[in-house]
Amino acid sequence: MPDTYVDDVKLAKFCTEVFVKLGVPRKDAQITSDVLVASDLRGIPSHGVARLMRYVDGIRAGTILPKAKPKIIKETSTTAAVDGRYGLGQPAGYFGMSLAIKKAKRSGVGFVTVRNSNHYGIAGYYSMMALKNNLIGISMTNSAPLAVPTFGRDSMIGTNPISLVAPASKERPYVLDMATTVVPRGKLEVLNRLGKPLPLGWAVDEHGVPTTDTARVLDNMSKAGGGGVLPLGGAGEELSGHKGYGLSLMVDVLSGALSGADYGPWVRTKKKDGTKGFINVGHFFGAIRIENFIPLRRFKATMDEMLTGLKDSHKASGERRIFIHGEKEFERHDEYKKKGVPLQDKVVAALKNLSAELSIPYNMEK
Amino acid sequence: MPDTYVDDVKLAKFCTEVFVKLGVPRKDAQITSDVLVASDLRGIPSHGVARLMRYVDGIRAGTILPKAKPKIIKETSTTAAVDGRYGLGQPAGYFGMSLAIKKAKRSGVGFVTVRNSNHYGIAGYYSMMALKNNLIGISMTNSAPLAVPTFGRDSMIGTNPISLVAPASKERPYVLDMATTVVPRGKLEVLNRLGKPLPLGWAVDEHGVPTTDTARVLDNMSKAGGGGVLPLGGAGEELSGHKGYGLSLMVDVLSGALSGADYGPWVRTKKKDGTKGFINVGHFFGAIRIENFIPLRRFKATMDEMLTGLKDSHKASGERRIFIHGEKEFERHDEYKKKGVPLQDKVVAALKNLSAELSIPYNMEK
Repeated sequence: MPDTYVDDVKLAKFCTEVFVKLGVPRKDAQITSDVLVASDLRGIPSHGVARLMRYVDGIRAGTILPKAKPKIIKETSTTAAVDGRYGLGQPAGYFGMSLAIKKAKRSGVGFVTVRNSNHYGIAGYYSMMALKNNLIGISMTNSAPLAVPTFGRDSMIGTNPISLVAPASKERPYVLDMATTVVPRGKLEVLNRLGKPLPLGWAVDEHGVPTTDTARVLDNMSKAGGGGVLPLGGAGEELSGHKGYGLSLMVDVLSGALSGADYGPWVRTKKKDGTKGFINVGHFFGAIRIENFIPLRRFKATMDEMLTGLKDSHKASGERRIFIHGEKEFERHDEYKKKGVPLQDKVVAALKNLSAELSIPYNMEK
Repeated sequence: MPDTYVDDVKLAKFCTEVFVKLGVPRKDAQITSDVLVASDLRGIPSHGVARLMRYVDGIRAGTILPKAKPKIIKETSTTAAVDGRYGLGQPAGYFGMSLAIKKAKRSGVGFVTVRNSNHYGIAGYYSMMALKNNLIGISMTNSAPLAVPTFGRDSMIGTNPISLVAPASKERPYVLDMATTVVPRGKLEVLNRLGKPLPLGWAVDEHGVPTTDTARVLDNMSKAGGGGVLPLGGAGEELSGHKGYGLSLMVDVLSGALSGADYGPWVRTKKKDGTKGFINVGHFFGAIRIENFIPLRRFKATMDEMLTGLKDSHKASGERRIFIHGEKEFERHDEYKKKGVPLQDKVVAALKNLSAELSIPYNMEK
């Protein structure tokens, strides 16, 4: 189906006005909108404006507090523990990463945890904030339980992404931003809409057995009926699924246990004691000053060599290109900046509804 | 074939005497032997005493300098850049991690790079040093190029392991220690000795095409003839091989580019300019003080809950146990402490040769 192309700046302004109408302070509304639109621009629509309605619903239902101000609970020159106070995840994430960057610039290293937060969008948005300052940036978050541990059959951990970025000189920066599962939920939803089966190795059914039944896996997920997506490396240990499971757990140790957020199966509204509560998502941010280890110019020159060496190496039979992490997204970004951001029809419909409902002019199509 | 079981303490003493005879200072010899035997005790013989001869050969050939003392090149209260001066990787790693721990205890966080080092054994040995101090420990290293980037066909990156550990209270600590490739080279060698094919998804041939031909992949590796092991996630992008490739690159950014060591295809004796030189391996170490973020007792209690929750969750059909990372290795350690460390016949033969040659009594069998 043909997408509608919209201007990214106008789209961000529209989203900002939506959040402002719902009581979010303008600066926080701008940050949140910027994170959403950045995701669409990078070709990751699953974490883009398509999610706007979930945030709107959360604020309206009282599960996301629009005016929450992140608060520093504990702080040293190199570390901080932040409480997001159940606000939007994006302003809390922006606050946490900004703090890590400030500390790294002054003290060489900055690490910040955030608890009592919400879904914060793409992990890479925050790590990439370090690039302007020529720092290495790190961003992780736990998330609602969707992934099954090796040899298990219940969703016990999130898709828990890891992002680490590092600047280069002539080359574009290295931007790793990956779920620790084989795929995120969004990829299953795409196949489901097309009525296609899953590749074997993406997910397991309610018995913990690998399956290609897309609808069944999604149905199980929505009713927490067991099964879920597999960790990176797939089912069992033959292709090292236990490694992806281990990475996912690592993210939960740093984002969940270390921050004091909920973890694993409890990152949802139903709590351990059976009551309902806020979703208490946790994040982990880091920044490292390169010059503390090596002259910046030398580091960037090495990055250039490393990245071009990989791209220029021999291709596999039938392949034409070797990519660096983040490269496809930078190209998408440049393309969509000109051509406009493609939005699916149902996203456009949701925006138009909000426009009518909140009296915010919808005027963004290219 | 039946293994010989040897006493781990006597084995370590034997190795220490070997290194001392070769000119390694006693303390460095003890550290190196401890790392090797710890690997055997944990059930990872590929990185254990089986490698002793490689170090011996390296020292004799002059490619590993036995008396090298690691030197701090650059230092702040939170960071240090260390030069291993082409000595054994184990003393350099021990030095680097000890420094990171000291800094984390005083300043909350400690990060240390090491360059001009050698193969340092299991990554987890160093990260686990943090546990005695109730810190989170991190250890990474780059390694000789054996892995093929997504869509490529040359070995351009190492098996580049990541280790992160965190203490628990009643439960054993979480100890992630994983190559970022599907498997390490050692697993291919095991299948080769048994004359068995590779599972599809472990490796590619010289055209970059997935293959089950064990001997061919190993032969290509030994003559640097293209092909190699696949990154975690396998070939192409369908099962997210690009994520394993990205993690491997992350390790090289931190261990190689940030430390000033060689990187990717250049972690070997043949250098970019065509000359021969020392293998310049790089390591990256980190330690994080938990109390800077959350009370230690609360963190450990959460870890207990998280780990038991995973282990107690429902098993996949036909499975009986869900493991935590490091758990199998702790059990192996306890078993081998009592029963002795199993050594393969060819390893025993090598030790006996060294015993005769260097006049060090071989007296370690259980």
